Amino acid sequence: MSEAGIDVGLLSPVTVGHDDLVTDAAILGALVTAEVALIRAYATVGAEVPGGLATAVEDVSIDLSALAAASVAGGNPVIPLVGLLKDQVPAADRVWVHRGATSQDIIDSALMLIARGAAAQVLASLAATEAALAEFAAAHRDEVAAARTLTQHAVPTTVGLRAANWLRGVRRASERLDAASAALPAQLGGAGGTLAAFVEAIGVERALALPVAFAAELGLATPDAPWHTTRWPVTELGDALVQAVDALGVIAGDVATLSRTEIGELAEGSGGGSSAMPQKRNPAASVLIRSAALRAPQLGATLHLAAALAVDERPDGAWHAEWPTLRELLRLALGASAHAATLVGGLRVDASAVARNLAMTNGLIVAERVSSVLGPLLGKERVGEIVRAAGEGEDLATLVDEELIEAGTTTVDVRSLLDPTYYTGLAGDIVDRALTPKNEKP
Amino acid sequence: MSEAGIDVGLLSPVTVGHDDLVTDAAILGALVTAEVALIRAYATVGAEVPGGLATAVEDVSIDLSALAAASVAGGNPVIPLVGLLKDQVPAADRVWVHRGATSQDIIDSALMLIARGAAAQVLASLAATEAALAEFAAAHRDEVAAARTLTQHAVPTTVGLRAANWLRGVRRASERLDAASAALPAQLGGAGGTLAAFVEAIGVERALALPVAFAAELGLATPDAPWHTTRWPVTELGDALVQAVDALGVIAGDVATLSRTEIGELAEGSGGGSSAMPQKRNPAASVLIRSAALRAPQLGATLHLAAALAVDERPDGAWHAEWPTLRELLRLALGASAHAATLVGGLRVDASAVARNLAMTNGLIVAERVSSVLGPLLGKERVGEIVRAAGEGEDLATLVDEELIEAGTTTVDVRSLLDPTYYTGLAGDIVDRALTPKNEKP
Amino acid sequence: MSEAGIDVGLLSPVTVGHDDLVTDAAILGALVTAEVALIRAYATVGAEVPGGLATAVEDVSIDLSALAAASVAGGNPVIPLVGLLKDQVPAADRVWVHRGATSQDIIDSALMLIARGAAAQVLASLAATEAALAEFAAAHRDEVAAARTLTQHAVPTTVGLRAANWLRGVRRASERLDAASAALPAQLGGAGGTLAAFVEAIGVERALALPVAFAAELGLATPDAPWHTTRWPVTELGDALVQAVDALGVIAGDVATLSRTEIGELAEGSGGGSSAMPQKRNPAASVLIRSAALRAPQLGATLHLAAALAVDERPDGAWHAEWPTLRELLRLALGASAHAATLVGGLRVDASAVARNLAMTNGLIVAERVSSVLGPLLGKERVGEIVRAAGEGEDLATLVDEELIEAGTTTVDVRSLLDPTYYTGLAGDIVDRALTPKNEKP
Amino acid sequence: MSEAGIDVGLLSPVTVGHDDLVTDAAILGALVTAEVALIRAYATVGAEVPGGLATAVEDVSIDLSALAAASVAGGNPVIPLVGLLKDQVPAADRVWVHRGATSQDIIDSALMLIARGAAAQVLASLAATEAALAEFAAAHRDEVAAARTLTQHAVPTTVGLRAANWLRGVRRASERLDAASAALPAQLGGAGGTLAAFVEAIGVERALALPVAFAAELGLATPDAPWHTTRWPVTELGDALVQAVDALGVIAGDVATLSRTEIGELAEGSGGGSSAMPQKRNPAASVLIRSAALRAPQLGATLHLAAALAVDERPDGAWHAEWPTLRELLRLALGASAHAATLVGGLRVDASAVARNLAMTNGLIVAERVSSVLGPLLGKERVGEIVRAAGEGEDLATLVDEELIEAGTTTVDVRSLLDPTYYTGLAGDIVDRALTPKNEKP
Repeated sequence: MSEAGIDVGLLSPVTVGHDDLVTDAAILGALVTAEVALIRAYATVGAEVPGGLATAVEDVSIDLSALAAASVAGGNPVIPLVGLLKDQVPAADRVWVHRGATSQDIIDSALMLIARGAAAQVLASLAATEAALAEFAAAHRDEVAAARTLTQHAVPTTVGLRAANWLRGVRRASERLDAASAALPAQLGGAGGTLAAFVEAIGVERALALPVAFAAELGLATPDAPWHTTRWPVTELGDALVQAVDALGVIAGDVATLSRTEIGELAEGSGGGSSAMPQKRNPAASVLIRSAALRAPQLGATLHLAAALAVDERPDGAWHAEWPTLRELLRLALGASAHAATLVGGLRVDASAVARNLAMTNGLIVAERVSSVLGPLLGKERVGEIVRAAGEGEDLATLVDEELIEAGTTTVDVRSLLDPTYYTGLAGDIVDRALTPKNEKP
Repeated sequence: MSEAGIDVGLLSPVTVGHDDLVTDAAILGALVTAEVALIRAYATVGAEVPGGLATAVEDVSIDLSALAAASVAGGNPVIPLVGLLKDQVPAADRVWVHRGATSQDIIDSALMLIARGAAAQVLASLAATEAALAEFAAAHRDEVAAARTLTQHAVPTTVGLRAANWLRGVRRASERLDAASAALPAQLGGAGGTLAAFVEAIGVERALALPVAFAAELGLATPDAPWHTTRWPVTELGDALVQAVDALGVIAGDVATLSRTEIGELAEGSGGGSSAMPQKRNPAASVLIRSAALRAPQLGATLHLAAALAVDERPDGAWHAEWPTLRELLRLALGASAHAATLVGGLRVDASAVARNLAMTNGLIVAERVSSVLGPLLGKERVGEIVRAAGEGEDLATLVDEELIEAGTTTVDVRSLLDPTYYTGLAGDIVDRALTPKNEKP
Repeated sequence: MSEAGIDVGLLSPVTVGHDDLVTDAAILGALVTAEVALIRAYATVGAEVPGGLATAVEDVSIDLSALAAASVAGGNPVIPLVGLLKDQVPAADRVWVHRGATSQDIIDSALMLIARGAAAQVLASLAATEAALAEFAAAHRDEVAAARTLTQHAVPTTVGLRAANWLRGVRRASERLDAASAALPAQLGGAGGTLAAFVEAIGVERALALPVAFAAELGLATPDAPWHTTRWPVTELGDALVQAVDALGVIAGDVATLSRTEIGELAEGSGGGSSAMPQKRNPAASVLIRSAALRAPQLGATLHLAAALAVDERPDGAWHAEWPTLRELLRLALGASAHAATLVGGLRVDASAVARNLAMTNGLIVAERVSSVLGPLLGKERVGEIVRAAGEGEDLATLVDEELIEAGTTTVDVRSLLDPTYYTGLAGDIVDRALTPKNEKP
Repeated sequence: MSEAGIDVGLLSPVTVGHDDLVTDAAILGALVTAEVALIRAYATVGAEVPGGLATAVEDVSIDLSALAAASVAGGNPVIPLVGLLKDQVPAADRVWVHRGATSQDIIDSALMLIARGAAAQVLASLAATEAALAEFAAAHRDEVAAARTLTQHAVPTTVGLRAANWLRGVRRASERLDAASAALPAQLGGAGGTLAAFVEAIGVERALALPVAFAAELGLATPDAPWHTTRWPVTELGDALVQAVDALGVIAGDVATLSRTEIGELAEGSGGGSSAMPQKRNPAASVLIRSAALRAPQLGATLHLAAALAVDERPDGAWHAEWPTLRELLRLALGASAHAATLVGGLRVDASAVARNLAMTNGLIVAERVSSVLGPLLGKERVGEIVRAAGEGEDLATLVDEELIEAGTTTVDVRSLLDPTYYTGLAGDIVDRALTPKNEKP
């Protein structure tokens, strides 16, 4: 067997191929980037940092597994990392490596950097999903289909409206993730969150400017203050990621359901096959997305717990619980969103299945309409009898015709009354509004 | 024993007395309010609703337990409720009760109404908490205390900075809850989310206006479209509530810790006593708030799961899982925030305990500073020896004095170097910024 | 609106009518029972308890809401309860009320008592469910149906095997819940879990006997020692309850799926109707059970968190988080199991739908068999072509016949090969084994 | 940076060095082992399996990352794996590779195999922890310390009793994990869980024997039937793992608390240091164990959700959600238990801190006893005054002496009454019982 880490994705097909930005190697890179950014920030605020130091530190080569092993004693990877970075530079310059910082400054900043990059990729996949959904919704705007509530056919809807609703969910999640990502702050507080060591090193004025410069180096938001135990940046990001996966989970759930052998209204572009059972068209992407959707909420809950238990100036376990949880949540969002973009891009509608299903209830898909239109004319009970009879197999149109003749009513256009096409309400309108970009709305 | 519902709060002391707005009776009231609002909205958009109908419906008197029992068969309380409301009005007018609506329209709208009201009360309690925190932080702005990381004394901080951090967390949560609450939409889509029955009843134009009028009646946001299976209003609210409870949980965790018999820096204004052990000053409010903080994240996760599993046009269980979960989360936020306001309002600092603890490490609370200042003068190893010796009980000032004399260094003000008061960095500055309302910031 | 507690079940139709054993009133009763049991246990071990004291205490009448309100200050209801109980008895006898006990002794014991009673009712409902499942599985032992994997028809199975699998899950959960319930211990440790106050009151020997007598009075297991912070009795019970709800959730999920309008193989005995859409046969019980199944796991997680955070000799919030969580979990299990028994008891199979669905894939439900049997005869590729052609609508039997003739093979009985009835493997055998009670197995 | 998988442990210091048994490489090994076991099981039941086939398959060399990448299309790694394994053997023999099996048979069996191995290692670490706890509890059986409830000193307890309680929790968790591990079954059901393809291949009798032989090859329990959608083996294992981590979390929480700078009763053998703050003795192992304890319950909840949502004959996402979740839970248990064994093995008590803390409340640690003994002699109110005065700093012994003299009481031995040593109740007895192995108990 090949040499590898603990997890190369064998048990996580939903994320395989989409997790480059959140690997341990990427995180190590971000840790180094954060240390380098601190050195550069010192220079920016006017401290006399030795020339070439940042570059020397940046050039470090580190054995990831060895670093992970060395992280155990102190409980975090920055402690051994700093030692390795200091070894890179002349003894006289070492004071400038990690100067004034605490491990949490580096880990939090690095994870925010990773999160920023991963969120950008998730947002790109969500945007692709939205574009595909918009196209799909427009294409199927007026394709009438059965709406199902509590598993049963209820009234007509349209294939387009269903997709427009998916789109609304994904778009909202995108907006939230975008906002959460933009708010991700750098972390710089020193051992106790007072920045005392920075003040000691470079004086008050420069220490005040340092977090600004540090955040700018990293392309992260400037923190209003150290947030060592004020963990909303993590939970707000987590919530937005879970919301994104929720929205994708709804699509996947609907596609899986509507792909059922008996329903067959939708099919993924490239279903997962089975060599032994070639008739199967497994909604493989939907299955994978759903596997993510079932996991994400509990990961989000762990982030909240860690936030709620952030006691002291650095808590005794809650902070450490965040790291792998946040990474896994980023990973799920990366994988689920990538699959969703592909899934929606290739999604096919079987119009004949849609029509067949719509007609399955012997016309009763418009029972609500029949009741509301004929009730005042024939009485509620009589209409009930008609509907029951249709439910048992009699022809609804004939039944209604007969009743109306008997009642001497001639004002009702029965063909039109019973045609699901004329009972989709505002479905088209809702689709149109969903397809109009926000800033073009009145 | 007295007659009562299943839950009167006996097992939930954190919420007792704070849950009036979220009782089943309040929810029943909101369901009726939603039905009445629909009737009024019809009138607003120009439908010929019989005069006095809304008032007649509003005047209904309902046996709550009987309604709950009648809810089981159909799986929701609106089905039997509509029957009772129709009984209130003349047969000819009954068509206008619940006209075109689906149960989910009423339940979702009612829960959003309840949520809006409860969120307002949570926000008021958070505001009171923030005000008390601001006062507390200002009063203790410069009171130097030990910062603790991973349970151990690290460097100095201030009592005020700790409170300012609590404040920052609560304020952020307030902002998010305020935004989530303002976004809570009414729900109006009819059986399949197409508004078809509304169009049938009053035509397209009025049907388009109906949700606007309905939302206005309820004081809720106008939905961009029906959100029967697009559940971000629920999860965003849930996330904001959990975030609020997280922020309060941090305060409670710190107060509980700092109230420990051995630490004694803080005390709740009115500690929970023990008749048998009168020496105890239990941080009772903190304990109760923490009990909420340990529960809220998992409730939030359930809301996300329900959102992710919202298949079809109404899902087969996920929606129903939301109701009690959202109510419980609102309840926890109501209770925890009310207790937090009281807790912070009465919080007392034992200045002597703060000082005693600060001095506990024999001066080593400034070891970081000693290392950074004396390291370059005496060498890292020599400083290490000094610190170790102090750790074993020798007098740090004497040790440093002797070393500096031996090294011939006279530039260091040892008293000042070792005084924690001079090693609080930007603590005061951070407090000041946290106390400045956002709109007054540059 | 009627007077009532916070929660009378309006938002929890799955539990309405099934939660008598876990109401706050019932819990108050159990608290009093625990205090009375302690008095009786003292008498049992030979302490000179005043005559009639237990009865006097037992006769107390308490205002539940007032007690809940009085619970807030100290954070638990036993503190005010003990005051009320002491008021019941002569001053001289008061020392015997709650003597030596701590609030946690009473609350834990009372909750275990409630749990024991509720678990017995859950077990009864599970037993009824099992009996109905056994009958159903036997009745449909050989009814061939499509097995579905990843939403797609795969191979044949039987209606009976599906039910037998449900039965296996429920039976296992019953066994676990029975074991967890039988292990539920009384709690008796005094303020610090040392039983010191009991020793002080009645000496070592009698103090050693007291927990045994106390547990016997309550019909609970004798604890091996106080478990104030060793919370496995709570988590093991919680795990068993979640497992039970899981097993019921699987049934509900399958019934909801197989009741879909397009599938229609199963129908609940009394589907939830819709007045406006009379064609609907909502699988209402399944929906309610699923709503419980989506909530239970997170409640179980909260119990584990509380267990993991049980620091000191009584933790600062974790214990309090258990109470409402455990009650809600018991409630869900009570409701879900009661509905499951009814659901399964009334479950109907539509044999024609089963047959229609089985035939839907144009014979390819046995594609796996066709491949394995014909592959060696015709070659894998040729068989693939046949299957593909059948998937596109050609008659499978004809295709196979032609190929076999062409290949000169006459040994294959094509009718039998393609008949799903002959490709159900050990389905009948598995059903039979599942129906055999464990103690009758070889 | 070095080549590596996604996760080499950089963000999970609690598991680094303890996860060899659950790496993707190990899992790939187990997948191959399961395929090989199936071939061997065929031979065992008398099928004419080509000689050397199992060995040929076993000798495969697979690129793990490539396999993971190939797993995406079909959503699981067994599909491409079978292709690779077939390539290992002559065309004529390929039919015997994976014959009759479905991917789930192999994945479930492999994960159970992995779980069995990992559980054995966890059990070994728990046993080491138990042994160390027993030694520790015995050594400190009679060392009197303050018991703390709700963060406050309550009454005396012993250091040994605290450890005995830890031991009770760990031992119970061991028993449960041992039972869950022993019950882990092999999986063998074929595509639809009917074993039809096995019957087709080798006839009914041999097909009945095949799962027995397969389980025996793997050293797993024989399943009573396929459990493709009856997931108690996974949730029971998960529950037991969470329970184990809970029990370790309690130890870690107590050690972290009692290691606080102000408390200082306990210290880990090798505290995590801080170069800048050498006075710190971070309870590093406790922090890491706590980080696991905060994550495990939500992972357990995900397993239950997956179990509850296991619809059809293979669900559309729930099963896939199990894999990484179960692995992560195994990993946390491996890491937490390994750290716990080391932690407890090196745990040190600072007897002087224990004594200092015990004396902190000016004698009021025995206030409960003072009240119960002196109450009847002096009256409840008078005793209350004494206790209050002591709480404000007066000498308790003097106060009691004076009162008793005034009351003319000479029967009370005040020194003994106030000595915490004489108020530890049954602490020693409970320790002794906890130290007695179960099978030696009467």
